[in-house]
Amino acid sequence: MNGRTRPLPSVVREFDCTGGTIIAYGHDTYTEPLRTDTTDYYQNPLDMDGVSHCSRDVTMTRATIERDPDLYRHRSMSNVITLYDIPSRDIKDNAWSPNTWKTRFSLNYKGLPYKTVWVEYPDIARVCQEIGAEPTSTSEYDTPKYTLPVIYDPSTKTVLAESAKIARYLDETYPDTPVLIPRGSSALHAAFQYAFAQMVSQPALPLMLPATNNILNPSSEAFYRRTRESWFGKLEDWSPPGPIREKHWEELRAALARVAGWMALDDEDKPFFMGDTICYADITIASILVWMKRVLGPKSQEWARVKTWDGGKWGSFMQAFDKYEMVL
Amino acid sequence: MNGRTRPLPSVVREFDCTGGTIIAYGHDTYTEPLRTDTTDYYQNPLDMDGVSHCSRDVTMTRATIERDPDLYRHRSMSNVITLYDIPSRDIKDNAWSPNTWKTRFSLNYKGLPYKTVWVEYPDIARVCQEIGAEPTSTSEYDTPKYTLPVIYDPSTKTVLAESAKIARYLDETYPDTPVLIPRGSSALHAAFQYAFAQMVSQPALPLMLPATNNILNPSSEAFYRRTRESWFGKLEDWSPPGPIREKHWEELRAALARVAGWMALDDEDKPFFMGDTICYADITIASILVWMKRVLGPKSQEWARVKTWDGGKWGSFMQAFDKYEMVL
Repeated sequence: MNGRTRPLPSVVREFDCTGGTIIAYGHDTYTEPLRTDTTDYYQNPLDMDGVSHCSRDVTMTRATIERDPDLYRHRSMSNVITLYDIPSRDIKDNAWSPNTWKTRFSLNYKGLPYKTVWVEYPDIARVCQEIGAEPTSTSEYDTPKYTLPVIYDPSTKTVLAESAKIARYLDETYPDTPVLIPRGSSALHAAFQYAFAQMVSQPALPLMLPATNNILNPSSEAFYRRTRESWFGKLEDWSPPGPIREKHWEELRAALARVAGWMALDDEDKPFFMGDTICYADITIASILVWMKRVLGPKSQEWARVKTWDGGKWGSFMQAFDKYEMVL
Repeated sequence: MNGRTRPLPSVVREFDCTGGTIIAYGHDTYTEPLRTDTTDYYQNPLDMDGVSHCSRDVTMTRATIERDPDLYRHRSMSNVITLYDIPSRDIKDNAWSPNTWKTRFSLNYKGLPYKTVWVEYPDIARVCQEIGAEPTSTSEYDTPKYTLPVIYDPSTKTVLAESAKIARYLDETYPDTPVLIPRGSSALHAAFQYAFAQMVSQPALPLMLPATNNILNPSSEAFYRRTRESWFGKLEDWSPPGPIREKHWEELRAALARVAGWMALDDEDKPFFMGDTICYADITIASILVWMKRVLGPKSQEWARVKTWDGGKWGSFMQAFDKYEMVL
């Protein structure tokens, strides 16, 4: 064990994480046998103090440990960053949320070790308050609003909420890892976040929120339905199959076509937002797309359609993220 | 005379342009006596072929010519870039439009010589078609929509519409001049343009469009009123003095505060969007602010109020643009 967190060599991003040690948030540690053939996840069946929450720290396979014992030493540190995320009842390795994927992709791209603590929706505010995470906004009634992702980094004793803030923190704290927001581009990145939320995330909501509701655990599902239905009414009516749903898909297609147009301004062949290297804008786009892929289903007709848009751009864009699509 | 356009040394941006030679677009040349004490402008009183339009090519004062004859040789080239802009009936040196200011600031910041051709609103489509400028969008009925700014660059025989496209063209064609959109930031800049239009330009419309209508020449005024009133009804009702107007000012203040927040993400003291150097995002912001300053009045209470927002940020931001606020 090594109490100091330091950046891993980039090869760490490539390693094979198919085993599983699972701990429950803030209570006790549950360990499952080391498995070499699955990325199965664990959901705590107990509801201690009325709260369902679980967490997971995937360890390495024996094969990986034998291949590179150095990696094992890094990965076996218990003192790694904790990422707080929202679980699912039937998504592969649990992770689905576009917002927490921004931080998960950030950590994976940087090759920083971390473990995940899974928090159900009704528990987010309490958990954030317990660990000292700031609210990310206040509602119209000035109630603090707590959201995930949140990270805790034991190496600096920092608790931080909000994915773009976390990205800037990781860039500053781990300067030897790949940069997410190049110096001088923070303000432009913030403008991008606003533009992308307005232009792409908004039209994705009627298509994605009802489908997301179906993959949540019961306590989150009830919370999600209640809060989301207060926005636009019954989830099942948001985007029923037929012409309304087709119109929503067309709006989303047009929005992503506009983003593809932006990306081609300097050079039609550049794969990422700022050129040949992934930046935080790319991670934001990939996080929406991985949400679609995972919640609609990687083999669904709807996801297959998205991959063909803009001459297959989004399919190949997401292929570049395959190696960062892992859950530690 | 020298038929070749090439970048001027940066000192050109500083010179004193207080005389006036005025030519009318596409017809004939009208020359006024060289004046040394005013930046007065000329509006062509004739309505040749039913069109009111005039243009202006400010020449140098005798004092400037004597001080630096080299500059005179550059400035006296007739073969400079032409900027097509929309005139006013009572704005100092004519220029008011936030969109054409984006290109004017771009040219002034780069120190590229140019002359202005003034085109009234009802003539924009015809003039664009005559010179071969592309429409910048198509309406819902697929009618091509022509807008200014447009430039004609005789050195490459290029006619180009749309301010961000023009900025990229100027960066590519004049690589020795200060860069507007640093390589790799085109997509982020495009996202910024979208975000700024949604977040800042939209709430500025009810405050600024009625005031803008009052500074246009009669033919433009009639066109402007008719088209803008088709959006939201009678211009005078958009933002009447009182609580409605206060609410609009508050919305605009909050939007600019958000932009100021973005700019402070890397460093609270950095003056511009990407750091210490002006980029095209700054020029976009300055173009909205110069529109407010000029149309509301540089000594108006409303402009005075804007300058105090965000701890005086926008006042000092615009001071940095003073030396680029000139009309050639």
